[in-house]
Amino acid sequence: MDAAVLDYLERSRNRRLSQLLELVRFPSVSARQEYAADVAACAAWLRDHLERIGLEHARLLPTGGNPIVYADWLHAAGAPTVLIYGHYDVQPSDPDELWASPPFEPEIRDGRIVARGASDNKGQIFAALGAIEALLAVEGRLPCNVRVAIEGEEELSADNLKAFLADAARSGILAADLALVTDSTMLAEDAPGVAVALRGMAALQFCVRTATADLHSGVYGGAVPNALQALAEILVSLKDPATGRVRVEGFYDAVRPMPEEERRSWAQLPFDANALEAELGAALAGEQGFTSYERMWGRPALDVCGAWGGYQGEGLQTVIPAEARAKISCRLVPDQEPEAVLDLLERHLQARAPARATVSIDWRLAASRPIVLPVEHPGVQAALSAAREGFEREPLVFRAGFSVPVAELFRRFLGLDSVLLGFILPDENMHAPNEFIRVDVFERGVRTYAAFLREQAR
Amino acid sequence: MDAAVLDYLERSRNRRLSQLLELVRFPSVSARQEYAADVAACAAWLRDHLERIGLEHARLLPTGGNPIVYADWLHAAGAPTVLIYGHYDVQPSDPDELWASPPFEPEIRDGRIVARGASDNKGQIFAALGAIEALLAVEGRLPCNVRVAIEGEEELSADNLKAFLADAARSGILAADLALVTDSTMLAEDAPGVAVALRGMAALQFCVRTATADLHSGVYGGAVPNALQALAEILVSLKDPATGRVRVEGFYDAVRPMPEEERRSWAQLPFDANALEAELGAALAGEQGFTSYERMWGRPALDVCGAWGGYQGEGLQTVIPAEARAKISCRLVPDQEPEAVLDLLERHLQARAPARATVSIDWRLAASRPIVLPVEHPGVQAALSAAREGFEREPLVFRAGFSVPVAELFRRFLGLDSVLLGFILPDENMHAPNEFIRVDVFERGVRTYAAFLREQAR
Repeated sequence: MDAAVLDYLERSRNRRLSQLLELVRFPSVSARQEYAADVAACAAWLRDHLERIGLEHARLLPTGGNPIVYADWLHAAGAPTVLIYGHYDVQPSDPDELWASPPFEPEIRDGRIVARGASDNKGQIFAALGAIEALLAVEGRLPCNVRVAIEGEEELSADNLKAFLADAARSGILAADLALVTDSTMLAEDAPGVAVALRGMAALQFCVRTATADLHSGVYGGAVPNALQALAEILVSLKDPATGRVRVEGFYDAVRPMPEEERRSWAQLPFDANALEAELGAALAGEQGFTSYERMWGRPALDVCGAWGGYQGEGLQTVIPAEARAKISCRLVPDQEPEAVLDLLERHLQARAPARATVSIDWRLAASRPIVLPVEHPGVQAALSAAREGFEREPLVFRAGFSVPVAELFRRFLGLDSVLLGFILPDENMHAPNEFIRVDVFERGVRTYAAFLREQAR
Repeated sequence: MDAAVLDYLERSRNRRLSQLLELVRFPSVSARQEYAADVAACAAWLRDHLERIGLEHARLLPTGGNPIVYADWLHAAGAPTVLIYGHYDVQPSDPDELWASPPFEPEIRDGRIVARGASDNKGQIFAALGAIEALLAVEGRLPCNVRVAIEGEEELSADNLKAFLADAARSGILAADLALVTDSTMLAEDAPGVAVALRGMAALQFCVRTATADLHSGVYGGAVPNALQALAEILVSLKDPATGRVRVEGFYDAVRPMPEEERRSWAQLPFDANALEAELGAALAGEQGFTSYERMWGRPALDVCGAWGGYQGEGLQTVIPAEARAKISCRLVPDQEPEAVLDLLERHLQARAPARATVSIDWRLAASRPIVLPVEHPGVQAALSAAREGFEREPLVFRAGFSVPVAELFRRFLGLDSVLLGFILPDENMHAPNEFIRVDVFERGVRTYAAFLREQAR
């Protein structure tokens, strides 16, 4: 990294941190109507900040809900354009009484900023803005073209974002060569890295019915079917208890084998099974023949997320339940298609419904496709170089088992690959009380993002 | 039946019916504190009525809750003593808007009395009092000794009754040779009969745990166990889907075979499988090798009455549930012991808990022992003769699949056999809106009870 830029970053550090404190002080909770004014104030503050650091066309782009804060810098003729994504809305802070300090009154203590949004995602996106500020301040220009889009409903729903992206695909306002998604994690404090894949997700809820209404277990017990018993049989039919394999016919057909090189590299990643088991209070277990990383990142999964039927209150009501329900979610890997998996699952449920029970589907949700970038992808390689420079460590290539919906939406609506380069650590209490960010990780993040933008000019 | 008694019954019919209307007009809802005064007024009315018809020592016996209305007539030297049981409390009437007429404002319409409690149990016990009244009025004496005990918490809990019976066993206030339980049913309007057995009941609730807290299905899906999946495996282990047999080791060991003669007589009982399936919206199904009556009356049953885990609200939360619960009830037949069955069940749950899941028992309830009288029992034979006389039809011998707790408590605390002779019909909306009793069935009931008391003198 250029010494002038490093010098600028060093000198501007205190100001940058106090600005970040300003940013996390907004209680921009998108899920609660009473914070609407704070959400708007936060967006306005960010727009002003984008202008202040030298970006152009800073403005609020309207959506069906909270606006997207936008700015660009498009004067790097011949260089690619990077769309930098983050979000300014945060999760609710409750239960507030579990916070050691008020969730929207941050201070820097012991090298940490404790506040709702510090890690998810204000700290991450602000690190990227710090990089842009430094490059523009020192060099008067950026090494590549940049569009910044910071949304305000990531913690709420993607519905407004989808409509916005459909429009943007026509207007070109987010036209780019690559997206940089700052809303991403790393595996450990000393282990910067790039997530090259995200699992997709599909889910449904179904109902098993065995009678018109609950029946008295004294009168009819032993002579009529029981919806909960039927549900249990169906759930067991979904997954082999011995091998951990999903038994839905065709479920694995579209699964692309994991590249051997990635599997080998995962085997080298830090992983302490005993520590994880102690932390979760759970024994690690899953599909036979695969490691935990492989199960979480490279293999699809099927889980019952909720199920219920009959009497669930205190004590006992001696009913034979007439209906029972379950919610099933599937985590998908390339090249599984959410709708196709739901079709297979639905077919299985109908086929495996016990005699004397009828299954109906309450709803289906084809939430997101799995996405994956090859490690050789230039965006991935740029991110690895940048992380090596920013953290002064050899970076890791990993995957994530969950979805980052925006990455899939960028692909679907804008045709863009997303580089997932962020610095959220597993212990930072995302979505929980006492969320925090480490100041030194934040600063390394600023340097990493600066290096990433430079890499685009190569 | 003696012509004079029949004549008396005929002449007193209208007065008896208006007295029954008075009785069902009391909203004696034991489960609701706001009806406490009505419950007390109902008890006082009944005590006065017992005195009015010529019984002696009419009084309210205190319990831990609502009093027991008591009276006796003990001048039949050498004849046995019958303890006649009923209850004056009723179920709540709500939802009141589903009643065609107000639940506590009865009239006689189309040969029916529609009111809460008309069938369960005021109509039944009042029929027995009608029989006593007629015999005392016509003959100046009863053919046997009689104690009447009408309790006020049958719809609430047996706790106060148990304490009362423990005391009564010492004081002798309920000393008798046989109990007549009026709180009982018949199979069809033209089919009087006697229930010679009741199933017992034992239940428990257990919890399956696989982790300290719910886990994110994206992050961990495929790599950790799921409490709902483990629960489903346990529930399936309890019952063979193919044969309908309970798979808890030892569950059937204490089951006494059904007497072949009873099985043959059940095969002759009215039973319309198609009509019942249409009514329940359920296909009849159960343990292989047994008929529906055998499954409901002569075989034990195991049912999941409720189960739940994970997210049960609208839409989806992509959690891997850390815990799941189920309530299991067992209907027991002679000679299964509730505590012993719970021990077997608990052992099974522990033994069949999947690896990586822990099972804990939330609570156990050894509710009641099964009871059975041989058809040759003199009380049963007396009841059959009486029903034949009262209804002018050949009576049926049947069983009931549920518990009538008082019958088991009379056996446990007083050493008494109970004859279950009542006239509640399946369509009379017990515990539901528009409960009613047929006037002509009620009158036949009065004649039957009179005949039953006479039979005791033989």
